[in-house]
Amino acid sequence: MARALDLARRGKGTTAPNPCVGAVLAREGRVVAEGWHQRCGGPHAEVNCLADARAKGVDPALCTLYVTLEPCNHYGRTPPCTKAVLEARVPRVVVGCLDPNPQVEGGGADFLRSRGVEVAVGVQERRCLDLIADFNVWRFTSRTYNILKMAATLDGRIAARSGRAAWVSCPESRSMVHDLRARVDAVVVGGGTLRQDDPRLTARTEGRSLERQPLAVVVTSLLPESGSPFSLLRERPEQTVFWTDAANAASTRAEALRDMGVRVWDLPPLEGERLDLGAGFERLRAEAACHATLCEGGGRLALSLARQGLMDEFLYVLAPKILGDEQGVPVFAGGPPHEMDKALNLRLADATPLGQDLLLSYRPA
Amino acid sequence: MARALDLARRGKGTTAPNPCVGAVLAREGRVVAEGWHQRCGGPHAEVNCLADARAKGVDPALCTLYVTLEPCNHYGRTPPCTKAVLEARVPRVVVGCLDPNPQVEGGGADFLRSRGVEVAVGVQERRCLDLIADFNVWRFTSRTYNILKMAATLDGRIAARSGRAAWVSCPESRSMVHDLRARVDAVVVGGGTLRQDDPRLTARTEGRSLERQPLAVVVTSLLPESGSPFSLLRERPEQTVFWTDAANAASTRAEALRDMGVRVWDLPPLEGERLDLGAGFERLRAEAACHATLCEGGGRLALSLARQGLMDEFLYVLAPKILGDEQGVPVFAGGPPHEMDKALNLRLADATPLGQDLLLSYRPA
Repeated sequence: MARALDLARRGKGTTAPNPCVGAVLAREGRVVAEGWHQRCGGPHAEVNCLADARAKGVDPALCTLYVTLEPCNHYGRTPPCTKAVLEARVPRVVVGCLDPNPQVEGGGADFLRSRGVEVAVGVQERRCLDLIADFNVWRFTSRTYNILKMAATLDGRIAARSGRAAWVSCPESRSMVHDLRARVDAVVVGGGTLRQDDPRLTARTEGRSLERQPLAVVVTSLLPESGSPFSLLRERPEQTVFWTDAANAASTRAEALRDMGVRVWDLPPLEGERLDLGAGFERLRAEAACHATLCEGGGRLALSLARQGLMDEFLYVLAPKILGDEQGVPVFAGGPPHEMDKALNLRLADATPLGQDLLLSYRPA
Repeated sequence: MARALDLARRGKGTTAPNPCVGAVLAREGRVVAEGWHQRCGGPHAEVNCLADARAKGVDPALCTLYVTLEPCNHYGRTPPCTKAVLEARVPRVVVGCLDPNPQVEGGGADFLRSRGVEVAVGVQERRCLDLIADFNVWRFTSRTYNILKMAATLDGRIAARSGRAAWVSCPESRSMVHDLRARVDAVVVGGGTLRQDDPRLTARTEGRSLERQPLAVVVTSLLPESGSPFSLLRERPEQTVFWTDAANAASTRAEALRDMGVRVWDLPPLEGERLDLGAGFERLRAEAACHATLCEGGGRLALSLARQGLMDEFLYVLAPKILGDEQGVPVFAGGPPHEMDKALNLRLADATPLGQDLLLSYRPA
């Protein structure tokens, strides 16, 4: 199942609004064929895995099929995977997690059992469920799936008090961020990050042109002048979106930005928060065909995202460093003076070394 | 070697000033006998392991010996382990790390090789070296080995701005702290922690009486009145030590504390720091027979310890929580307004889930 999970993750960024799924055929404890769902509309993981078996001359009737998500049992863009499994005479199927989709729930596993296939469910279930968290957001909400990525020192500082962040994290971590950007449809930052860092927010990965870049979303109550020298305005105004309040969105400054192709959206206010970010993520999905976003801070935007329940995954790059300055820029900021029992609770999903840093993956508790 | 490392760690707290060492005999990839150095003056790990083999009827001549540290080759309180290994006709020895002691270096391994034993060196070397970091402090310095333990939220807060820390960490983490306290000779905190938490700083582990408790060291520029209701003064004045500057140590308040059995030590100042903590750790070792200490904060003491190069190990309990208040109490504080390239660099040595928290072990880079 670990291998099936790895395979599934290769589909991240290209399967939306389908889930990422991985499958392997194993014989006597060894993986003999593999497949994963590569893109929406293409064959499912089980079908790709069975095709791989055919190409390799492996007989599925002598194997166990491991699949991260319950095989589908309905006609969609492709025929049901249960059909392919039965036709290949696979005797045993191990399923990571059941499909929580009401249309499918229990269907694929139960159907296979009714046809004499041995089915086990719930192997590495937590990881398999985490893998389809984006799929569930796409099915059950009208907003994007949102990843928050922050890099901080052990004392939770994303920059020195001067605002300079170079370099909190190691080269491997910074390279990972470009891979992440390449898998999402929009990168979201706060206005402070725009003014401090003048970021390009592009995925600088091999063979990626400026045309195929994620949108750049800036959340701010201080719109820049249209003539200001920010890279986003100079290099890709038509890929830039500002989220601001109604007054700012109606200003002459906003009009000047719109004249150069920049989108300026007004978001409604939310109790206790400046802006209802959820409205922005819904609009990104409805109007800009975005499925996944990556938020890269700063600390105030990060906390708003978490407090508004819009942070589906938190990737925390923890650098093995101590800044020691209590005026350093904090990784989460802007909360009221509350007590520890009012802290937001998360769940640790994964921890992996990344160069000299540690990459921690947290999800809503 | 992983098993040998686990065995070695059982000796933590009872071998000083000797190193912790673990050994196993393996036959056909299975561990068939094991031993570890249990206490200073007692038999070494290799000897205990060979005794275990005899008791179990295992023939060492058919086994490989795995030992975390190079076997000793000199007469100390016990005969050389190389002698025991040769007498048992062990054909192959796998050594985690060589002994950096000039008296022994290369000696044990080379001696065994010269007698026809096959010796491999450097398996899980980093972990084996980390295991004897305390031993090296004891041999090459005149101070104690110091562990810093801090528990914080993901945003690096050890308490809310009110000062209340209950509860950052989970029950498993808090229980781990009592095991740690039981393995050290002194627990060190700052004056703010004394005043805020009124801690007892005892190891509340099974079967441990008040007599067998680590010393409580409080680093402060504000000595309490002898009549103040702090638990340390009420319950165990003779186990309490204050570290302060010369003026405070000469005050009538200090005299009153001394009258009730409390020790008040003056530490010299250090450039850029209030007190030379190293002098305190040397005195703890020389005058109070302490070998290991556990520092439990607060943030200012923690940073001083790290900046003064006295933090040999940093155990960081990272709770999966976001406080979000930039006025929350920071895990490291008091540094100058320096830039990120002046941050203190550490090395991640280990990461383990602990209840819902993550226990991270860092060491000097």
